[in-house]
Amino acid sequence: MEAKIEFIASGGITSPHGFHAGATYAGIKEKTEDGLDLGLLFSEVPCVATAVFTTNQIKAAPIVLCQQRLKSGKAVAVVVNTGCANACTGEQGLGDATEMAELAAKSMGLSPEEVLVASTGVIGQPLPMKLIKAGIDQIVLSADGGHELAKAIMTTDTFPKETAVGVKAGEGEFIIGGVAKGSGMIHPNLATMLCFLSTDAAVDIGLLKFALQRAVDISFNMISIDGDTSPNDMVLIMANGLAGKKPISPGSQLADAFQQALEKVCLYLAKCIAADGEGASRLIEVTVSGAADEASARLAARTVVSSPLVKAAVHGSDPNWGRIVAAVGRSGAEVVESKIDLYIDQVCVVKAGKPLPFSRQSVVRALNRKEVCVSLNLNLGSGRATAWGCDLSEEYVTINSQYTT
Amino acid sequence: MEAKIEFIASGGITSPHGFHAGATYAGIKEKTEDGLDLGLLFSEVPCVATAVFTTNQIKAAPIVLCQQRLKSGKAVAVVVNTGCANACTGEQGLGDATEMAELAAKSMGLSPEEVLVASTGVIGQPLPMKLIKAGIDQIVLSADGGHELAKAIMTTDTFPKETAVGVKAGEGEFIIGGVAKGSGMIHPNLATMLCFLSTDAAVDIGLLKFALQRAVDISFNMISIDGDTSPNDMVLIMANGLAGKKPISPGSQLADAFQQALEKVCLYLAKCIAADGEGASRLIEVTVSGAADEASARLAARTVVSSPLVKAAVHGSDPNWGRIVAAVGRSGAEVVESKIDLYIDQVCVVKAGKPLPFSRQSVVRALNRKEVCVSLNLNLGSGRATAWGCDLSEEYVTINSQYTT
Repeated sequence: MEAKIEFIASGGITSPHGFHAGATYAGIKEKTEDGLDLGLLFSEVPCVATAVFTTNQIKAAPIVLCQQRLKSGKAVAVVVNTGCANACTGEQGLGDATEMAELAAKSMGLSPEEVLVASTGVIGQPLPMKLIKAGIDQIVLSADGGHELAKAIMTTDTFPKETAVGVKAGEGEFIIGGVAKGSGMIHPNLATMLCFLSTDAAVDIGLLKFALQRAVDISFNMISIDGDTSPNDMVLIMANGLAGKKPISPGSQLADAFQQALEKVCLYLAKCIAADGEGASRLIEVTVSGAADEASARLAARTVVSSPLVKAAVHGSDPNWGRIVAAVGRSGAEVVESKIDLYIDQVCVVKAGKPLPFSRQSVVRALNRKEVCVSLNLNLGSGRATAWGCDLSEEYVTINSQYTT
Repeated sequence: MEAKIEFIASGGITSPHGFHAGATYAGIKEKTEDGLDLGLLFSEVPCVATAVFTTNQIKAAPIVLCQQRLKSGKAVAVVVNTGCANACTGEQGLGDATEMAELAAKSMGLSPEEVLVASTGVIGQPLPMKLIKAGIDQIVLSADGGHELAKAIMTTDTFPKETAVGVKAGEGEFIIGGVAKGSGMIHPNLATMLCFLSTDAAVDIGLLKFALQRAVDISFNMISIDGDTSPNDMVLIMANGLAGKKPISPGSQLADAFQQALEKVCLYLAKCIAADGEGASRLIEVTVSGAADEASARLAARTVVSSPLVKAAVHGSDPNWGRIVAAVGRSGAEVVESKIDLYIDQVCVVKAGKPLPFSRQSVVRALNRKEVCVSLNLNLGSGRATAWGCDLSEEYVTINSQYTT
């Protein structure tokens, strides 16, 4: 069945039916222009919910709490703060996260178990519970509050990241919305990636888990700012079923359309995060084709996009293709030098492992664009993957070496 | 048997008996103050020789040539150039490397097979053979030419890296010398690490291979500037036996002393490389103890010392210990948060996973020193390892984003 999947203008986390959001400035982080630091996401009816969490063995208290609560496969609301990660905070941290959920539950008339918690910010400091309590009471939920939430979860992000797509497939019709914050690092602490996804589709929990993992694998797991992962990373999806009809389950008519739409939302948000890496001025897209298998293609693409040398070369618009080939060579993916083709934008600079003479000016111009495309064909098999990252600038170092408390 | 191993003042690659070296400026790279770019290392008698090469699947022509020639376990001389890596140069590159060895062999009265070749510099450009030919003929070998060679292999290194140790153990007496260039990147190309080691000890080839691999594992394989590896990396050792006596073999009296002395030389040179990372102002030493096993300790130490966030924090003297704990958490080593102890210099900032109040001023002062020590005890087992790296500065980015041809 052919599905029609279209971006919704000014869409976001509250675009799907029945989702409300709101935010406030609670005073947890330093006040910036229209700065918000505490937000709520709420669904009118209980949702089927699942999440993908950080693989870091050091997990923040809210992650531990969400992992416990999502065993039920259900959730109704999320409370989220910036400015304090509530990580490396031991038992007190878990107590605080639990209390934060209770406070949010009370304000929305829910039971605490229905509320999830997310935090991002400084590690090793306790949550300022008084500020959080006072802040939660100030938040006004609304059906167009998605943009407020998008702003509330920003840290060193330079723009809010949100989108939604509308899907029509046969008689089915539903919306998926999403909001994310980037791996820009909180002053003065760790890069955290948060993403909340909402949908009014009715989705079987098994399919939802599978679909989310797949979408995360090709989007958020294929971006790199600096290779560091945080104890607080999470991607959450909540499906409230208000678009009606019976749940989308594996093999059902709408399953493909749901997967495609979810990937579209995740890819959009992931690319926003990559483009907004700290100090970044370029989005770098690296596509590896012809790899021995998909795993090798992913490895090669991620290694190139993560290489500090490649990133610095792009920053300087330096057509320094040797660094790209060398990064592939150390990636662990199978590589045969004499088979590699390399393109920067449309320009072939290496063919079958041999450097070609190329117009330096054309390549410099391509490297100067906001989006820089690098394509490698390893000519070994059919594995293919794309990864996104950003250039490495002096500003990245400045941001991350200045402690500002 | 107790061995006495002492650094030799102003020692280097020509400190062991029978080694000669020399260098010249051949015009391959841009001329800098006392800039040299072509050098020779020569032993009066044939050496037992072995090397550890780059693990990058893209291998430069000189690496391919050395791998072939070292199958014999023998070598007499090395010719080395900077300014051109002779990598990604296909058949012509291999032909040029072979010819470079021939030219050097002729100038020293050797057969070509006795000569090894090393290059570092721009990728994808052919060796300027005329300059190399003319340059080789200008080089004057001498028994105190080691310092010239140390200067000739420098690229963005800010100081020459060389040392030697004298060893006395029972009736045995020998010297090990070494010279290295760092992973400072050549303008405008790839980080390369070259190290040549010489000894007048007589060493069995089997022991020499084992000893070199072990020494490299705990030294050069434990340093990180930016995680990128080059197609040209190599660590070569040549043992000419002129100190006399029968060869040191596994289990023989001097085997331990040889191993210790070799590790001492390699560690010294590795730390010089780490401290001289591009744009670096600090040497960072990370020791992980109490890991489940040595492999885990190595992984954890390397991950911390390679983390851009940790490196940037050290650059800013920012006591941002959360980044260190998070880096260990994502390293792949087994970690239990509630067991981690973390020290910055002598100051315990995390005990059993819990942040301790600490004197910010003391930690900032420790982070301001030229050598910054970080120690982690995972309290899980007896695995222990140390890794070295440097801070990440704005200057690193500036150096690596500027193309200067």
